[in-house]
Amino acid sequence: MLEKTRKLLRIRNSTIREMLAEALGTFILMVFGLSSVAQVVLGKGNSGHYLSINMAFGIGVTLGIYAAGGVSGAHLNAAITITQCVLGNISWTTLAAYITGQFLGSFMAAATVFALYYDAIYEYTNGNLTVSGPTATAMIFSTYPAPSVSLQGAFFTEFMATVMLILGVLVIHDEKNNAAIKGAQPMLSGMLVLGIGLGMGLNTGYAINPSRDLPPRIFTAIAGWGMAVFTDDHSWWWVPVAAPILGCLFGVFIYKLCIDFHNHPGHETEHEKEEAGMETSRL
Amino acid sequence: MLEKTRKLLRIRNSTIREMLAEALGTFILMVFGLSSVAQVVLGKGNSGHYLSINMAFGIGVTLGIYAAGGVSGAHLNAAITITQCVLGNISWTTLAAYITGQFLGSFMAAATVFALYYDAIYEYTNGNLTVSGPTATAMIFSTYPAPSVSLQGAFFTEFMATVMLILGVLVIHDEKNNAAIKGAQPMLSGMLVLGIGLGMGLNTGYAINPSRDLPPRIFTAIAGWGMAVFTDDHSWWWVPVAAPILGCLFGVFIYKLCIDFHNHPGHETEHEKEEAGMETSRL
Amino acid sequence: MLEKTRKLLRIRNSTIREMLAEALGTFILMVFGLSSVAQVVLGKGNSGHYLSINMAFGIGVTLGIYAAGGVSGAHLNAAITITQCVLGNISWTTLAAYITGQFLGSFMAAATVFALYYDAIYEYTNGNLTVSGPTATAMIFSTYPAPSVSLQGAFFTEFMATVMLILGVLVIHDEKNNAAIKGAQPMLSGMLVLGIGLGMGLNTGYAINPSRDLPPRIFTAIAGWGMAVFTDDHSWWWVPVAAPILGCLFGVFIYKLCIDFHNHPGHETEHEKEEAGMETSRL
Amino acid sequence: MLEKTRKLLRIRNSTIREMLAEALGTFILMVFGLSSVAQVVLGKGNSGHYLSINMAFGIGVTLGIYAAGGVSGAHLNAAITITQCVLGNISWTTLAAYITGQFLGSFMAAATVFALYYDAIYEYTNGNLTVSGPTATAMIFSTYPAPSVSLQGAFFTEFMATVMLILGVLVIHDEKNNAAIKGAQPMLSGMLVLGIGLGMGLNTGYAINPSRDLPPRIFTAIAGWGMAVFTDDHSWWWVPVAAPILGCLFGVFIYKLCIDFHNHPGHETEHEKEEAGMETSRL
Repeated sequence: MLEKTRKLLRIRNSTIREMLAEALGTFILMVFGLSSVAQVVLGKGNSGHYLSINMAFGIGVTLGIYAAGGVSGAHLNAAITITQCVLGNISWTTLAAYITGQFLGSFMAAATVFALYYDAIYEYTNGNLTVSGPTATAMIFSTYPAPSVSLQGAFFTEFMATVMLILGVLVIHDEKNNAAIKGAQPMLSGMLVLGIGLGMGLNTGYAINPSRDLPPRIFTAIAGWGMAVFTDDHSWWWVPVAAPILGCLFGVFIYKLCIDFHNHPGHETEHEKEEAGMETSRL
Repeated sequence: MLEKTRKLLRIRNSTIREMLAEALGTFILMVFGLSSVAQVVLGKGNSGHYLSINMAFGIGVTLGIYAAGGVSGAHLNAAITITQCVLGNISWTTLAAYITGQFLGSFMAAATVFALYYDAIYEYTNGNLTVSGPTATAMIFSTYPAPSVSLQGAFFTEFMATVMLILGVLVIHDEKNNAAIKGAQPMLSGMLVLGIGLGMGLNTGYAINPSRDLPPRIFTAIAGWGMAVFTDDHSWWWVPVAAPILGCLFGVFIYKLCIDFHNHPGHETEHEKEEAGMETSRL
Repeated sequence: MLEKTRKLLRIRNSTIREMLAEALGTFILMVFGLSSVAQVVLGKGNSGHYLSINMAFGIGVTLGIYAAGGVSGAHLNAAITITQCVLGNISWTTLAAYITGQFLGSFMAAATVFALYYDAIYEYTNGNLTVSGPTATAMIFSTYPAPSVSLQGAFFTEFMATVMLILGVLVIHDEKNNAAIKGAQPMLSGMLVLGIGLGMGLNTGYAINPSRDLPPRIFTAIAGWGMAVFTDDHSWWWVPVAAPILGCLFGVFIYKLCIDFHNHPGHETEHEKEEAGMETSRL
Repeated sequence: MLEKTRKLLRIRNSTIREMLAEALGTFILMVFGLSSVAQVVLGKGNSGHYLSINMAFGIGVTLGIYAAGGVSGAHLNAAITITQCVLGNISWTTLAAYITGQFLGSFMAAATVFALYYDAIYEYTNGNLTVSGPTATAMIFSTYPAPSVSLQGAFFTEFMATVMLILGVLVIHDEKNNAAIKGAQPMLSGMLVLGIGLGMGLNTGYAINPSRDLPPRIFTAIAGWGMAVFTDDHSWWWVPVAAPILGCLFGVFIYKLCIDFHNHPGHETEHEKEEAGMETSRL
């Protein structure tokens, strides 16, 4: 029976398959991430701390990459997809498919977490869904800047945190350099995101990904928080969309400048790697 | 001498061996998990936090899979075993053997943790073993819903958390997609359970496994907490049995729909994987 | 010059080399472990929590195994060494060399941590080195039972925690079953010890290893805490020596009974493993 | 276009390439590390604890090694570079290039974190950048000793913590002994630094690396904290420069004495390793 269903539902078009993979991967990433924010906020500190959120986004990234890696390469981040397109690695059609998938997955995840914590949100807020104030809950879904940070400071934070993100992604995966073991790369990408949360989350909540921030914001606008999610904090919403894209492009450039432009093709580098390795063990 | 004992005690029947493996694996999982809850509750917050429990269940899952993986495939969860049976992958006899093993291991683990913390439980409760109230201890062994959550909300939480569990299990192990390194898969399954605890534990304590929840509940009913462990919270006990089974089945379906139905057999996918990999490194 | 020194200092006797390896491995394990207890106690909670101690002992175990693994197999625990001897795997001479190495390393580590935190210990205690009371510091070095736990309860805790330790060690390393990747086994052993600390540390501080507990206790007796480290808590000191040895032996027996006695030799099991693996991926 | 830029910017000189790699690797390490200190200090404990800092430095080390490992071997620490030079493994020119790279990367990271948290630092300090006092912020960038620790105690702490660092680095990488899997070594080096922070950070903040401590100190001297960063705490600044170098040399000696001098060349050791492994699995 399963075999028949398989034949019936099998999609051969690779663009649609990539869209579905990005959707599932981003859905997994976002359910783990957003639900941990919900648990910390609604649990009033008894069921987790800021660190839990950092860890959960890391785990979500890891599992999301395992989910989509074999089909789409697991971007799960519109900034990475756009960078790939600017570099000429993917077509405009693929770009559209990836981002559509990511946004669908992210939106569905926001809806799922809202359903999961519907009771708790209503008990916590008395039914009053707000962006700010003592029982604010909008930040369960999307990021908002800290009160004391300036717009430039916040923009620079999102820019820089994404520079670090893409630098990390590149060093983990660069086969010409010192890549991690294939099957462990998703775990290291998770650790990378954990690390960003540990140090670069205070100002803006480290969106570093338009696909992480915008779809849940749209969801909250619809689900009862209203247009304040877009207008508040001086119309903050566009920063976690624009800054990560620029940061991603800049990070790729930095990496090429410092490492990649100068690396020989594979086999020669292998030799150098050994030498480098030997130096350490020769200590 | 050991060789003689070995010959004497060696069991050749593979069903009994699988039952024993599931029993040992579940025992290990549950001793790590339940003892960490005991330590947090009885230690009054000085010897661990909610995060410790999340970590300990993750570590227990990892070690339980290393224990049973080579013999039974390490289900350690009746919801997974039932799903396998529904999909026609295991027979009814195997189903019975696996679940018997899991329940035995889980029950033994509850008894072990009770013995470990016998003194501390009696000091903490003054010998008054209760399900609710300020010195409630039943939740050391089984899950109970948070006071403010509705039955539907709690059911949906267990359902959805198990969807995420099985999605994670599938993406970690799917050789046709982007599986983790063989010997590291148990570690990633542990991380997965840690992630579920970080974000989906607030409402119901994330049972996500009938074999984790029901046998310790039976143990507490016998060991002094009485039938309240079944009748309290509107007879809550059946939810962490039924919801995970449905969630597991639904999660498998989602994964097949999004990824698995469309994946070519092994060698072709290998090619695609490389391409996907190259895209990232081509950044 | 280094080559000459090497020739001069090179030891060819493998028993002495094993002793040195056990000494270095146990030294590393214990410096990481004990210093983390010191940091939590002397830092008054600002520089770490109970969780830090659990993590540090785990990391210490991991690094200690990397240090001694290639030479002695990295027991780092007299209970494991004695179990190996009882099972006939090592000779009495080797037993003596291993335990001597472990005790030397552990004693040196206690001395090192005392030196590291000499100033802080004197500031914290006003120079009054005690086993109990509000500024007790003896528990930085050795374990003491919680006030409310009975001797039987404490003995059973150390026994059972060591059963879990050896079960974990066996499942991580059993090539006939589902062993972890070779180079990652030390990391998993660290996770195992972390897990024991998360759930089985409340009663007795989880010594689970005579080589972890006795040499630092001897050190404290000499360094200023006096014979109270042996006589206090009803002469507690012998429990973390005797209980782990019994627990280790019992744990090995349980594992053989549940898994190992029934496992076919390598190549057949490989086949079964694949089957088990396939079952999961067939989901 | 990228190919043209590549040709234009490609550097063939391997010393400059190594300098760039050390710069990028140290930059990554330091941005993760310093930003986490900033987040804990400026977030007033709501966005992380001491543990976050330990984790972030660990993650920074891991990613820094992935970044520089393929080109320079990823020292990222002047103490290691100097030790390599003393042992005759690298030339004076290479030494100069590595340390220049490390210092550049570290200085740039301090500037980046200052820019990231410019708003928050000014809000927290009211614009008064100080080394000590209730709103001290200099310790975001460089280490300062705890008030109660003596200079000798502090020196010994930095010395000993670096001994543990280099012992850990050696045991993780020693192919003749029990090295970790190649692609996972950077992760273990990160865990090692996490472990040092968990237990050896109380006295001095575990600099264990001149390249981690001195360039950010120079940055703070320039950026508004003034010469107090050098003169305070009895001109503390030279200790985290000198003590790690001595510790690194001493640690290498200890390792050679205990393990390395006695190890046969590769293939024989392989045999012994197997034996050691078998012993454990023979349990």
